[in-house]
Amino acid sequence: MSSNKAIRRIAIIGTGVIGASWTALFLAKGLQVVATDIAPNAEASLRKFVESAWPALKRLGLSPGASQSNLKFTAALPQAIAGADLVQENGPERIDFKQKLYGQLDELLPADVIIASSSSGLKMSDIQSGAASHPERCVIAHPFNPPHLIPLVEIVGGATTSEATIQRAAEFYTSIGQRTVRLNKEMPGHVANRLQAALAREVYYLVADGVVSAADVDTALCWGPGLRWGVMGPSLLWHLGGGAGGIEHFMDTLMDPMAAAWKTLGNPQMTPELKQTIVDGVLAEANGHSVDELSAERDAMLLALQATRAEHELSRPLGSPSAA
Amino acid sequence: MSSNKAIRRIAIIGTGVIGASWTALFLAKGLQVVATDIAPNAEASLRKFVESAWPALKRLGLSPGASQSNLKFTAALPQAIAGADLVQENGPERIDFKQKLYGQLDELLPADVIIASSSSGLKMSDIQSGAASHPERCVIAHPFNPPHLIPLVEIVGGATTSEATIQRAAEFYTSIGQRTVRLNKEMPGHVANRLQAALAREVYYLVADGVVSAADVDTALCWGPGLRWGVMGPSLLWHLGGGAGGIEHFMDTLMDPMAAAWKTLGNPQMTPELKQTIVDGVLAEANGHSVDELSAERDAMLLALQATRAEHELSRPLGSPSAA
Repeated sequence: MSSNKAIRRIAIIGTGVIGASWTALFLAKGLQVVATDIAPNAEASLRKFVESAWPALKRLGLSPGASQSNLKFTAALPQAIAGADLVQENGPERIDFKQKLYGQLDELLPADVIIASSSSGLKMSDIQSGAASHPERCVIAHPFNPPHLIPLVEIVGGATTSEATIQRAAEFYTSIGQRTVRLNKEMPGHVANRLQAALAREVYYLVADGVVSAADVDTALCWGPGLRWGVMGPSLLWHLGGGAGGIEHFMDTLMDPMAAAWKTLGNPQMTPELKQTIVDGVLAEANGHSVDELSAERDAMLLALQATRAEHELSRPLGSPSAA
Repeated sequence: MSSNKAIRRIAIIGTGVIGASWTALFLAKGLQVVATDIAPNAEASLRKFVESAWPALKRLGLSPGASQSNLKFTAALPQAIAGADLVQENGPERIDFKQKLYGQLDELLPADVIIASSSSGLKMSDIQSGAASHPERCVIAHPFNPPHLIPLVEIVGGATTSEATIQRAAEFYTSIGQRTVRLNKEMPGHVANRLQAALAREVYYLVADGVVSAADVDTALCWGPGLRWGVMGPSLLWHLGGGAGGIEHFMDTLMDPMAAAWKTLGNPQMTPELKQTIVDGVLAEANGHSVDELSAERDAMLLALQATRAEHELSRPLGSPSAA
């Protein structure tokens, strides 16, 4: 069932790392949030997280009406979802757990309420089989952690998800400033985690082979191609690298040599020795700074980078839920 | 032969895209530059490039004495290299050409002058075999294009390169603000281009398989993991993602699932149809903006990002020329 009803009230199921970050984001966007989790101290942890995230969210820009006081918490699932326009589910990554949960949600919720899963490892086709009445309103909306600082949301439906649900979900996340991409079919790891894995495979091959230290390969990435990926995606960058001929020139001259180079890429064995080499390299790179100090550095840079992106960005098509 | 002589005067051989960008960078760092190229109009093109790059270089910070008037040009190689402390060679990527050139340079230059090649595709072991007398002063110093905007320099010696040359080259590029990484052995594509290729392989697999559009995978990268890689390398990010347990916790819990996911990554065939799909996707993403407009956007963001990095960066070990 489709709906044009505005999405103003979100139920958050599961307030671990991802659920807490979603909560902070939705509150910053001026939405009403009711969160639920059965863990002891879940409410206190959640409120503490939201409070600590608030200064960064302020810097990224609060929406009218945004307030931490718009957060309600209840340990009871039925109360949490009552009146919700969209459920953001962040439960454990176990298919039996999720199928049972979706059955319960499906029974309790009106048919026009979207149930969006943050799952990174499960397929919506499997999850939604637990929702007997209205599986069509179930969809994956996978954030890139943490969603209150990184705007990507990957959207993909299962076998019985309706196109209307996908469109409405994409519009909702886009409307609160997230960057949505739509997957036309289910893939393990969706897109972003696969890209991370592909990069890591070559990173650790080069370390395993003794070509470069773990610290130096970090340097090579974040002061080389990573700088550029901080501002644009690889294909658009190649459009610019191709000069006046753009991406077509790139395809005619540079793509075949790169595709040929794929044959030379490596595939390391992740042995205990390699893990130790990486650990040693990273600790050397950290240079005595604590995880907290380095995290603060990362977050300050991420905020400033997003302000830069917002300042300079030319118009591009927004999330393209129907693009193939 | 080692030397502690300060490197103040650079000879640039070849003033195409890479050589021109090196020229601009060295001038901005207050160095004397003599450039040579046999192409018609090379001098005029070079001076025009340097002039157009100067505002960005100013914004990144000019060194004392930096001036475009420190650039001399001559079409005659012997004059260009006379008195140079370091030669930055950017000639055509043909081994016969480079071997002959290195023979000539080796004869003309005192033994303590470093000959640094920008080559991305050839091995120094092969190139330096042309330098009969002093192959030990020949080294690869590969920039990530364009070097005046992206600070990465990959340093790798050939079979007969001396450790002193590698150290001195690393110190030189580091002293002018570049970020050096040292490869302990020769690898096709060095490090950064291999990382780009590894990412691209999965990007185009997902496009080829119809999972996502070329534009959407750009979005997924540059608003997801790319944002983070714009500020730190992947291993250091995992150190922070591991929470209080840091990289050791990451290795214990998340590395094995990621390594298992490597088996699911793809390997696309770069067919004409796939190329066309990518071209179409990128042109849609460009949304009518010209290459020049988008390049200006990219460069403005890159400059701002580097200012952000400089502002927030905690101390880390500098280029680690002896790290294994």
